[in-house]
Amino acid sequence: MAVLVPPDQEPLERQHVLRLEVGGAESNVACGLAALGHRVAWVSRVGDDPLGRRVLADLQGRGVDVRGVETDPDRPTGVYFKDTGPVGTGTYYYRRGSAATRMSPDLAKACHARLVHLSGITMALSDSCADLVAEIVVRRAVPGATVSFDVNHRPALWRHRDPATALLEPARRADIVFVGRDEAETLWGTVKTEEIRDLLAPAAVIVVKDAEHGATAYTADGGEVFVAAPHSRIVERVGAGDAFAAGYLAAHLEGRGPAVALRLGHLMAAAALATGGDVPTAPDRAELDRLLTLDEEEWSTLRLG
Amino acid sequence: MAVLVPPDQEPLERQHVLRLEVGGAESNVACGLAALGHRVAWVSRVGDDPLGRRVLADLQGRGVDVRGVETDPDRPTGVYFKDTGPVGTGTYYYRRGSAATRMSPDLAKACHARLVHLSGITMALSDSCADLVAEIVVRRAVPGATVSFDVNHRPALWRHRDPATALLEPARRADIVFVGRDEAETLWGTVKTEEIRDLLAPAAVIVVKDAEHGATAYTADGGEVFVAAPHSRIVERVGAGDAFAAGYLAAHLEGRGPAVALRLGHLMAAAALATGGDVPTAPDRAELDRLLTLDEEEWSTLRLG
Repeated sequence: MAVLVPPDQEPLERQHVLRLEVGGAESNVACGLAALGHRVAWVSRVGDDPLGRRVLADLQGRGVDVRGVETDPDRPTGVYFKDTGPVGTGTYYYRRGSAATRMSPDLAKACHARLVHLSGITMALSDSCADLVAEIVVRRAVPGATVSFDVNHRPALWRHRDPATALLEPARRADIVFVGRDEAETLWGTVKTEEIRDLLAPAAVIVVKDAEHGATAYTADGGEVFVAAPHSRIVERVGAGDAFAAGYLAAHLEGRGPAVALRLGHLMAAAALATGGDVPTAPDRAELDRLLTLDEEEWSTLRLG
Repeated sequence: MAVLVPPDQEPLERQHVLRLEVGGAESNVACGLAALGHRVAWVSRVGDDPLGRRVLADLQGRGVDVRGVETDPDRPTGVYFKDTGPVGTGTYYYRRGSAATRMSPDLAKACHARLVHLSGITMALSDSCADLVAEIVVRRAVPGATVSFDVNHRPALWRHRDPATALLEPARRADIVFVGRDEAETLWGTVKTEEIRDLLAPAAVIVVKDAEHGATAYTADGGEVFVAAPHSRIVERVGAGDAFAAGYLAAHLEGRGPAVALRLGHLMAAAALATGGDVPTAPDRAELDRLLTLDEEEWSTLRLG
């Protein structure tokens, strides 16, 4: 998806120039994984138009395999605008009837991977997109793949349906589920992280993110690990959750435990928080690996950005 | 409508920054008329969003009365992207379900004016928008107003309907109709300007534009006036037709004859051709008025920009 981003902190309505970038939950995660050295493909649909070509070229330039992306001759590439303000970032979507809204369970056939990552944003795009998510997360259409699901509740996309019910099933059925404590409270009225764990308990790994405080991973064996987020500079929050997921999933693919995975998630999120775009410049992998080995005290006093 | 414009001649798909401007056929004409010193109001619908506020502030800053514009709490402001290339400018619309698509004949009640200008683009947005155009152009819902109609054929907006039939009736029923010779050929197979005159003959004034060659006005009394376009620098063509209409209509409102009106149309179009945005910086009115009084030979050797 193409994203138009204000170049400074002034409101969108007063801007005269916008940066043209690429964003979207799943593609952000794909870029993060590629930046961390993993082989990754993004499967979606774009329009046969300049913004679609721009999205493909950008992702390819970041090392993401886009050969499975379908080009739609009749429907446009999705677009959204960011409005960066002091009380958070407003997002204004232009994706009604976009090429991506026509994703359907057929796309699952194109997936061959050790891990498939999906988000609640894709579910919200259309009924056929929701079917695609169910096909992969619930009906396990990609044989042998670990399935990761980020709840990613975007109220603006759910105006005419109930997200609480729709998002609960894939969240429970995933192998790894990511959810913000705040969004879980909005969706399901859960206040404490333990309540979220109990609600989503069938999921093998439940990662509850609590903004700048830190994140907790609950594992199927009853394990619980909390890792505090390092202090970091915040320019703009959109994309930080996706970067966190990329870091966590990279560590998971590398066979590391949840404590290291949470750290790598935080480090990637910090890089995203420090930029106005959705996808951060890839931090140096060797430096990231060094930070993963800090002792507890060094980690707790870490300041980034 | 908000417009995203590449800042240079590179293709849209390779741009990293876009200019955020305001465009759209009727609002461009309104800006042109305001720049020429006329009282003008733009009546439309925008979303309750930053791009809608930007459109209103921009038009107001150009002297256009926007008090009659409705703000829609549920639908977004329309957007389009320009892709400036060597073989013309591509336009990519994001206005499916936009606030403006919900314009309906009710809006005609808000109009009190000596002259109302509409375009075929508005007709293409939705059935209710087409009804609004019919209400004003065919059923004359604005009492006492001269009705001006620019055919403004945009193939991308007419994929599922036949523009040839839809655009013919308002073109014939207007008091002043603007049409490009090329677009008339595409729509109706007319090759010569006289054929267009015969086809649209019920219209009181028929203005046929022939790109950079010039334009012909056919009047109800059988009059025919051709005025050659002055030589001018061409940066980008979108908006030139709207600027032409603004110039012609300004002269008409000032009680001048078709020869002067065609000249003022050409001068405004030249200003639009010299800019990448839809709405040109207003040329100095005193200088324009001086150019309107040039003798034939001086006009024929005029070079602008």
